[in-house]
Amino acid sequence: MGAGRFFEDFRLGEELRHAAPRTVTEADASLYAALYGSRWPLHGSVPFARTLGYRSAPIDDLLVFHVVFGQSVADVSLNAVANLGYAEGVFGEPVYPGDTLGARSTVIGLKENSNRQTGVVWVRTTGANQHGQTAVEYVRWVMVKKRDERAPAPETRVPELAPAVAAERLSVPADLNLAGYDRGATGEPRLWEDYAEGERIDHVDGTTIEEAEHMLATRLYRNSARVHFNRHAEKDGRFGRRIVYGGHVLSIARAQAFNGLGNAFRIAAINGGTHAAPAFAGDTIYAWTEVAGKFPLAGRADLGALRLRTYALKDRTSVDFPGRSGDGFDPAVALEFDYTVLMPRR
Amino acid sequence: MGAGRFFEDFRLGEELRHAAPRTVTEADASLYAALYGSRWPLHGSVPFARTLGYRSAPIDDLLVFHVVFGQSVADVSLNAVANLGYAEGVFGEPVYPGDTLGARSTVIGLKENSNRQTGVVWVRTTGANQHGQTAVEYVRWVMVKKRDERAPAPETRVPELAPAVAAERLSVPADLNLAGYDRGATGEPRLWEDYAEGERIDHVDGTTIEEAEHMLATRLYRNSARVHFNRHAEKDGRFGRRIVYGGHVLSIARAQAFNGLGNAFRIAAINGGTHAAPAFAGDTIYAWTEVAGKFPLAGRADLGALRLRTYALKDRTSVDFPGRSGDGFDPAVALEFDYTVLMPRR
Amino acid sequence: MGAGRFFEDFRLGEELRHAAPRTVTEADASLYAALYGSRWPLHGSVPFARTLGYRSAPIDDLLVFHVVFGQSVADVSLNAVANLGYAEGVFGEPVYPGDTLGARSTVIGLKENSNRQTGVVWVRTTGANQHGQTAVEYVRWVMVKKRDERAPAPETRVPELAPAVAAERLSVPADLNLAGYDRGATGEPRLWEDYAEGERIDHVDGTTIEEAEHMLATRLYRNSARVHFNRHAEKDGRFGRRIVYGGHVLSIARAQAFNGLGNAFRIAAINGGTHAAPAFAGDTIYAWTEVAGKFPLAGRADLGALRLRTYALKDRTSVDFPGRSGDGFDPAVALEFDYTVLMPRR
Repeated sequence: MGAGRFFEDFRLGEELRHAAPRTVTEADASLYAALYGSRWPLHGSVPFARTLGYRSAPIDDLLVFHVVFGQSVADVSLNAVANLGYAEGVFGEPVYPGDTLGARSTVIGLKENSNRQTGVVWVRTTGANQHGQTAVEYVRWVMVKKRDERAPAPETRVPELAPAVAAERLSVPADLNLAGYDRGATGEPRLWEDYAEGERIDHVDGTTIEEAEHMLATRLYRNSARVHFNRHAEKDGRFGRRIVYGGHVLSIARAQAFNGLGNAFRIAAINGGTHAAPAFAGDTIYAWTEVAGKFPLAGRADLGALRLRTYALKDRTSVDFPGRSGDGFDPAVALEFDYTVLMPRR
Repeated sequence: MGAGRFFEDFRLGEELRHAAPRTVTEADASLYAALYGSRWPLHGSVPFARTLGYRSAPIDDLLVFHVVFGQSVADVSLNAVANLGYAEGVFGEPVYPGDTLGARSTVIGLKENSNRQTGVVWVRTTGANQHGQTAVEYVRWVMVKKRDERAPAPETRVPELAPAVAAERLSVPADLNLAGYDRGATGEPRLWEDYAEGERIDHVDGTTIEEAEHMLATRLYRNSARVHFNRHAEKDGRFGRRIVYGGHVLSIARAQAFNGLGNAFRIAAINGGTHAAPAFAGDTIYAWTEVAGKFPLAGRADLGALRLRTYALKDRTSVDFPGRSGDGFDPAVALEFDYTVLMPRR
Repeated sequence: MGAGRFFEDFRLGEELRHAAPRTVTEADASLYAALYGSRWPLHGSVPFARTLGYRSAPIDDLLVFHVVFGQSVADVSLNAVANLGYAEGVFGEPVYPGDTLGARSTVIGLKENSNRQTGVVWVRTTGANQHGQTAVEYVRWVMVKKRDERAPAPETRVPELAPAVAAERLSVPADLNLAGYDRGATGEPRLWEDYAEGERIDHVDGTTIEEAEHMLATRLYRNSARVHFNRHAEKDGRFGRRIVYGGHVLSIARAQAFNGLGNAFRIAAINGGTHAAPAFAGDTIYAWTEVAGKFPLAGRADLGALRLRTYALKDRTSVDFPGRSGDGFDPAVALEFDYTVLMPRR
């Protein structure tokens, strides 16, 4: 126990049931908000949430994602070298305080690297509540160490993944009712019609990461990946220090995005994501967002979707919007996150 | 969004409805207690609170204050240079876990500074629960930057503020019943009769501030003032580092005051307050209190009020009670807080 | 108030009722889990707990211990030089969110040290819920300073303490039902039969302690011992810096022990414990466990007990199992904890 799986331990089609199911509470939501300063009233105000048809304030979408991700770490990525990407992420049933999330993953792709020391594993992970309803589902792929270089390579299988989640796959909460949506509660006057494709939004704030904070967050998610917690081992590791869980940077950026996207009340899909550079304690994160697309939703005149690309930067403001650069990224970019949000229409 | 209001954006008489209403939970109370080590049994023990006639353990008065203050920051003080003072603060309806606090402010004073770069804004801020009952109300004034030095000065209006909240304005919780008040639960034998005007109390403890702690606290309050969170920007700022939210120092001092004032179970009023010097991570806070006044409450033979002045010090013990000095303060003083507490009588 | 009791203030047979009773909440459980990354599903998943016959997810045994210990500090160990040991610790009634814990101690032993500057105080501390049911009871002894060296020595009385808690003293939760125990929820296949006396288990993980974390934890427990919080005073103290509460190290080690002992779902007894060396922020804690004994429980074919000795190490991995060495401990050992856990049988 505790050593984790190596590349040669994965089999195509294998189903992994992850341990440590977890009842998500109001307290998890409170600590999450204190870690990021998240001000979205859907998650912070019960009356606001009820006005929209939710039965209480639902758990923040990214907290749901992190909790499910965290459960998968012990089986999938304890021996990962890198978290390579995400795709086909869809948020389903809202999660409320008191719901219990369990997670499973299916191995959908395997590819040994030419150095024979590592390989890439693709998994489709599903987090479901105590009624078996899917709360979130996504594909991620990670580079995992081999225990033994001489272990035979599995047949290569690289899954075909959608470049973005299609509109018809998005899930709108069943009783969502935007008739009483109150922009005064977000302080943001702009609704779906007011954003233009290609528009870029500077989220202004800068947030410095502390060791205690990213470790608290990562443990809140029960993510047990060792590189985040162990200074003694990491001082001799690749970066000489603890690495911040990439999801922590993501949640910082999402919280900052309240400045300018305050009515993007729900993340409906994760189209993709790249951790372009590792983050460390002491780094200050800034973020900006490009509106990459915009589409209506069938049967909902009150609701639209925006496809967004949010860039989290390290120690550099967003004033000149650094992002992709050549084949890669500007060196200041820690994260590119491509996702789809729901927003009220006029 | 996110840039905040500058001095010239404020209009006398203007009403500001603050965004991000917030349901305060048991979890916020727990995290608050963990941040400060607060041991007041009224807030920590449901049976103790019920014995006193509360329907559950109410939220700590200062947590209520910080949550309301935090909501006001985005509209009032995002571009503030200094938090200058408080007055006429009154705590009203107790707040219970599950209540939702919303906040509004009225601009009651404006005065441009002679350098034309900044001005002082006075606001009266009210935090109310989901039934519209006032939980706390107070005046604060801040020095705010101008966006443009050439913007015309508004008519000067400096509000007249009461030097202290009068006894008849204090609110006693409706069903308060001190018949079963149990000093064993506080460990403090002294009641209202046992304190003398002019008495000084050393609260003994010293508490070192960490970056992760003050940022967690400040985000718990949804206070989005940038100087608290951004090392990258503040390294070139006035102090070369992040500034601790003054309310964090206040809460540290109040928690320490349990030593010697353990039966001061409720803050009823804020008469005034001065952040005499900024605090930074690494500072160790000590506190002491002067009993500045003492008065009975009409119709309550079981309850008295004490007016207190608590001084929070940096890196200096309270043994010789440093406080006011000449026109200003001893250099060790970070905060002078003038408030009125309720305490059982014999 | 706040100065604490000195050695000469204790009387044999004296009963101390500790202040600051405390309602333990779901939020305390959440913060505890975030501080340690604890993954035991009994405490993290309500459905898992209910399947076992608990009415909800009970509070982690060590959190119960810390909360009771924390209440006792103001009366017992505010002037302690060292926490010397524990014995005869028994966990009784499970504690659920919403229960209120109060604590009392009886002075059962006193012995002045030959230097006349300090003495050893033995107390038996009991933590009970709002119905008066005992949640935990234990003996601890501490070395306490004298206020005045010339104060007369009390009659020496060293209590006789059991070397281990006997099987018949262990409390099994009343409605415990292991029929539906699901190892998939812990990820650990091994049950009671699979452990052998003398076996040693490396818990693999390493966890670096941060100042903000140990202070948050210690305040969560309302432990007010000054050495944990005050850099300004401790810079001139014995170690030149703040000392981490020994119980924080204990909780880190217990959380790590999920790797290899994932089905040890309940701590039933504390047989003994030694804080062999102080821990400080920056230290990385590793842990390993020796199975010191193994016994069945009368009337329970479904449940067995393991006596465990867990060693917490500083900045050294468990790979070669450093522990006792000569009369003392290997210098890497911070804690030896001797306890008894319950585990399902096949």
